[in-house]
This record gives sequence, C-alpha cells and structure tokens, in this order.
Amino acid sequence: MEIREQLISMATEARTASRFLNCVGTERKNMALAKIAEEIKNNCGYILTENRKDIEMAKHNGIKESMIDRLTLTESRIVSIAESIEKVINLPDPIGVSEGFTRPNGLVINKVTVPIGVIGIIYESRPNVTVDAAVLCLKSSNSVILRGGKEAINSNIALVTVINKALELCGFVRGCVNLIQSTSRDYTNELMRLHGYVDVIIPRGSAGLIKAVCENSTVPVIETGAGNCHIYVDDSADFEMARNIIINAKTQRPSVCNAVENLLVHKEIAKEFLPFIADALLEKGVEIRVSEECFEYLDGYSVNGADEQDFYTEYNDFIISVKTVENIDCAIEHINEHNTGHSEAIITKSLFNSQKFSNRVDAAAVYTNASTRFTDGEEFGFGAEIGISTQKLHARGPMALKELTTFKYVISGEGQIR
Amino acid sequence: MEIREQLISMATEARTASRFLNCVGTERKNMALAKIAEEIKNNCGYILTENRKDIEMAKHNGIKESMIDRLTLTESRIVSIAESIEKVINLPDPIGVSEGFTRPNGLVINKVTVPIGVIGIIYESRPNVTVDAAVLCLKSSNSVILRGGKEAINSNIALVTVINKALELCGFVRGCVNLIQSTSRDYTNELMRLHGYVDVIIPRGSAGLIKAVCENSTVPVIETGAGNCHIYVDDSADFEMARNIIINAKTQRPSVCNAVENLLVHKEIAKEFLPFIADALLEKGVEIRVSEECFEYLDGYSVNGADEQDFYTEYNDFIISVKTVENIDCAIEHINEHNTGHSEAIITKSLFNSQKFSNRVDAAAVYTNASTRFTDGEEFGFGAEIGISTQKLHARGPMALKELTTFKYVISGEGQIR
Repeated sequence: MEIREQLISMATEARTASRFLNCVGTERKNMALAKIAEEIKNNCGYILTENRKDIEMAKHNGIKESMIDRLTLTESRIVSIAESIEKVINLPDPIGVSEGFTRPNGLVINKVTVPIGVIGIIYESRPNVTVDAAVLCLKSSNSVILRGGKEAINSNIALVTVINKALELCGFVRGCVNLIQSTSRDYTNELMRLHGYVDVIIPRGSAGLIKAVCENSTVPVIETGAGNCHIYVDDSADFEMARNIIINAKTQRPSVCNAVENLLVHKEIAKEFLPFIADALLEKGVEIRVSEECFEYLDGYSVNGADEQDFYTEYNDFIISVKTVENIDCAIEHINEHNTGHSEAIITKSLFNSQKFSNRVDAAAVYTNASTRFTDGEEFGFGAEIGISTQKLHARGPMALKELTTFKYVISGEGQIR
Repeated sequence: MEIREQLISMATEARTASRFLNCVGTERKNMALAKIAEEIKNNCGYILTENRKDIEMAKHNGIKESMIDRLTLTESRIVSIAESIEKVINLPDPIGVSEGFTRPNGLVINKVTVPIGVIGIIYESRPNVTVDAAVLCLKSSNSVILRGGKEAINSNIALVTVINKALELCGFVRGCVNLIQSTSRDYTNELMRLHGYVDVIIPRGSAGLIKAVCENSTVPVIETGAGNCHIYVDDSADFEMARNIIINAKTQRPSVCNAVENLLVHKEIAKEFLPFIADALLEKGVEIRVSEECFEYLDGYSVNGADEQDFYTEYNDFIISVKTVENIDCAIEHINEHNTGHSEAIITKSLFNSQKFSNRVDAAAVYTNASTRFTDGEEFGFGAEIGISTQKLHARGPMALKELTTFKYVISGEGQIR
C-alpha cells in the first residue's frame, strides 16, 4: 500500500475512534488511564528490553550522550511515567464544559467544549512523550497519531503496544492511540498533508523540526516553539532580586525552553550591576558573552564577545548573552526584534515601566519581578502540559488539557426562523 | 523590487503599525472609525466613479450578473457601509479584557486579550468586505493586509485611499490598512508564504479559494468554509414546525453559507412528510433532488434524482437534496460523512434524540428545532462578523471581534524563583 493510503487508513480508523471517545464519559476514560498506568508498570521488563535495543543502536550510531540520556528508560523512570498518569486522572475532564446565553428571540445558545478529533504529534526521541501525549489526548477524548523520533522506535512500539492492550481490556475501540511504525521520513511528510483527515498537528522538539512542520503542513499546526527568553534589568531594579531571578532562570535547568538566554541591562546601572551579576554567573559556571560596550565594565572578568547571532540563539546551555540598553524602550524594541514569543521578564521597582513592558512586549508570558522558568503548565496550575505554544492562534503559552479541546455551539429553539 | 521583497516591506510596515495600534486606546480608535465613516460618505462620488470602472470592465469581460451585483456600489450601499461602521464603533473594545488568578507562591497571573498583530485577508470581488475587514481589524488593534479580487481593484484602491486619508487625519501611523494593488496571482501566493511576517490569513470566498489557501499557506489560516448544511426531520417531529424551518433555511436567502442544502427524513414518516414538504418547497420554486427510495412517496410530484455528488454539494441556490434514513444514528452518520462542519439541525420532540444529535454531530453549530440561518455573528449577538469558521482551532462558528484577538499571560511577582 502507498504511504498516503496507509496513513489515510490509519487516520480514518482514528476518526472512528475519536467518535467513540467523544461518547465515553469521564469515569470510563479515567478507568482506562488507570489501566494504562498499571499495564506500564506490569510490563516494565518488556519495555526496558525494547528500550535497551534503541540505546544500543544509538550508541552504535554515535548519538551524543545528552540525547541518549533522554532516550533512556529505567525502572524508576517508568514508575514516574506511571505516576504522571495518576496526576492526569485527577485533573478535571475538559470536555462538556459549557457556558450559555439566551437571545431575545428565545434561542438558547450554549458554547460547549468538545474534543478536537484526530491529533497528530510529531516529536523527537523521548519515549516519555509517547505516554504523555497519548494520555493527554485520551483524557480530552481525542484520538492521536504519534510520530516519534526514529532512535526511540522500539521503545515507542513497546509503549503503544502496552497502552493499546490496556485500552482493549477496557473495551475501547481500536484506533484511539496510533503509532507510525516506519521510521521513513516520507511518513512524516505525508502525515502533514492529511488535511481533512487529521485536525491538528503539534510538533514538539527542535526549532528545525518545528520550522519544517510549519512550512510543509496543510493540516493546521500549533507551534510549540523555541524559547529565546530575555530578562531586562531596569535602572530601578533591586540588585539582589535581579541576581536571584537571573541565576534561577539561567541555571536551574538550562536545557529547557523557559530558561533565560539574554540579559539586557539599563546603561545607567551597567557599571555597578554587570560586575555584580558576572560574579554570580561565573560562580555557577555560566559562560558570559557580552556585546562590545560591556567590556569596559567587566575589566578582568573572564567573558567573551557576543556577535549579533548570539542574540538570536537559544543556547539551552550554561551560556548567556549580555547587552546594555539606553532605556526601557530600547529593551522592548530589542526583545520584540529578537524573541521567539515565549517568556520575557523585567526586573524593576517602577510601576510605569512594569506596565509599559507588560503591554508592549510581544510574548506568551511577560513577567515583572519573577523568573521566566514559571512558564509551565504545572506552575500555572493547569496540570500536565503538552507543550508551550509560541504562536498566537488557538493556544498561547502552556498548553494543557483545555487547549486540546475545541467547542461547538449547541442551540435549542422552539421553531425559531429568520 | 521582487514580489516577496515588496510584500515583506509592506508586512514590516504593518508590523510597526500593529505596535502603534496596540497602544492606541478605545476612544482614539473609535474616533478614527468615525472619521473613516465620514470620509467614505464625503468621497462617495470618487468611490462611485472608480467602482464604475470596475463594473464596466466586468461587463466587458462577460462576468455573470450575480457577481456584477456584488461588485456594484451605489450611493445607498455606500451609506449602509458607513452605517455599519457606526455599529462597530458601538461594540465593546475586545482588547485588554483580562481574567486572573493568584498561585500559591503569590504569583499573580493575568490572561489579557491582545491583538493578533498583522492579519492577511484574501477575498473575492466584494468592495464592502474591504471596509468591513479594515474596520474590524482596526477596532481590534490589528493591522491588515487586504488582497481583494481583481475585478474590484479600482473600487478597493479608492476605498483604502479614503480610509488611509481618514487615519492620517487622526494621526495614525502609515501601514495600519494595506492593500495589495497588483492583481497578479503571484502576490497572493507570496502573501501566503510570509510566515513570521503575517500572523494569520483569513480567506473569504469560494471553496476553491479557501482550499488553495489552506494547501499553500505557511502562515496559520482560519478557514471560513463552505456550508453544506443539513436538517434532519426525526420521526417525532412536529410537521408544521419542520416545514417552517426548512422553508426558512432553504429560501430566505439561499446564496449564503448557513442556508440548508440537504434534508434527511426518518423513514417512518417519509410517506406522510415527503409530499407535505414537497408541496411547500415546490410552491417556493425550489428544485427537489431525491435519492432513489423517495420516488415512491412522491408519485406525481415534479422532482429529480439526486446522485451521491448532490449530497456533497453546497448549491447556494433554490435546490435541495432529500434522502430518507433508517433512524437518527444513520442521520448522524450521514451528516458527519458529508457535512462541512458548519450548521446542522434536528427537528424533534424527543429529548434523547436532541441530546444525541447535539453530542454526536460534528459541526460549529448544532440546532434543535430552529433554522440553520441563525449561524451569524449578528444573530448570535456578537455584532459584526468577519466570517464563519468551519475549522476547529482558534475560532469556530461566527468570528467577530473577539476572534481577532489572542492573549498573553501578564505575570506579576515579588522576586519568585523556582
């Protein structure tokens, strides 16, 4: 069978399954999720064996250590995957939430949340995403087509097999959770072109992956983009607060998208603040890359020069670029020019500057006097998240269960006509 | 200059203008809208002269009458365009609406509505859409790039010139309202590929236009799709109510997307109901196309046969396709297979069947005992609309000012870190 036909067949089964999921109540969905958690724990040995194959192949292919780490499952990681399912069970069902109003002609219009339908998720070689994505889609009554990175294919097949066994035991129809088992890129390309069969594609992973999906997909895409995040230290900032926030945002977990990558400092405080923060950053082992004008304030410090490209770069590492700015307007302009629309922060004591920054910076999350690291479904109180949207349509910022729903208008009349 | 460079230059100016519009308050926006209405009325002669050129060219090119009618402006149509601007002035500003909550760590998280940014609108030869789109975008603080049908180019240039004169008089920066003045298709194609420069593209027009945009755009698209709408007459339906609703939904304005195109009748009532509704439809001059099994109930009636294609067709005309179904499940299945996700109705006295139909039919608006013609921004009480979305992301159903906004999270702390 041709690739497109295979995928259409998979998507058609997923569509039927989505209609089934649409009619399954909360209790039955939660029972199925509990069964999945149970089966994942029960099949720990099988999953680890299959994961081992992926790891050996990755080592054989010289894949770098950090990637092998993300690929690796252990008994304790499997337990924590199962535990995260328990958390999703405890979240409220996002489906069937309604708000309504009555029109002057007596029509009662209710806006009711409903599943999106068939969701495609394209991601890299992290087996935990396979379970997260399947579980969030099931909780929101969507069927899902998973397309994970090729390095994790054996792990993914094992996990989806276990998930589907659990769903079958609970009497769920086939096609709720689907995995593309071929590792050929042609499948990814065709998946993106299933307009009418797949309702949305969510890419999770590197900037390159996301760009490729945005440019080639005929299916609507929700970008979960890169985070080139900034902290601007205003001239009225409290230095200690600024230092604590910058160190937290840069070093608490530098590999994630809400870590800070760029520091902008009001020129009036540069002379005092730059050495102060450089001490703290260097002590934490952070490489500092500064623009030209900073060098005079950092005489004797071990810092490197930053070029223009540095200010567009999401390092995801113990590196930060630093620059001084004339004033808050220049800071806002710099951020709107260089950012990816993720998370930006100002450290200030000025109410006016906080308001100006919040109003004018174009990003999913704009902070005053707090770390950018809070842009996260759990930290926002939304529960589990499927990613952070850096685009403006449908979802922006942390995407949790609610963002996996759409709505319909359910209208009730007594014979009204126009 | 290359086409892409021209459009990037236009979009960059539009981006700057969008940052200006983001900071303009409600009063100033409303004053500018009032000035636009005034200038349109004051420049009626100029607009009509330019419109005349388009009409003559259209006649010369043998464009069909109904299209020339949509292209034609008259003094009274211009007055009604200006009046519709007054209505938008009176609508509440959709920007800056916020809802917030406080996290256990004291972070205050506010979700605030903000403009989307730069909106591209691709539409056919209806000059009134030029004004509608510009006005709705301005009211929601978005800048807009308009790409109207080539047959209306002189009218559109005149209208946008007048709009921009009004904006200039109000001290607005250049680039808030932009029109692509070349009629070459290459501009449309490049506009769709300005990912990163344009935030969303909204196509308005024929199914062909919308399909082309969805398949080729790298910019996110909101589909305002076709309406292949159904009415299902359940076995418990009140015949008179069913007739009134069907006649209204088919004949009150057959050219619009929320008109009904297909009638499904429960087989138990077919013998009685089909002649009853055929009388009413034929009296209104509606052509009836029936599937095979209906003929026996309509002996002596002037009806035609429907083929499978008829049930996929949005006639936009005095034509309706008719079919009997075994039961409500078959009706739902037929609708989900053939519909375009717009508006669907059931006529029934059964609460269970109303609930089942409302839950399972996949469409933007699902009616019980009311005409599909109500799917409309004004009828829903949303005020002016920019189209009816038939997709599931961001907006579904009537798209009004709120759907031209996105949001950001504005977070206020006192030094919180993770």
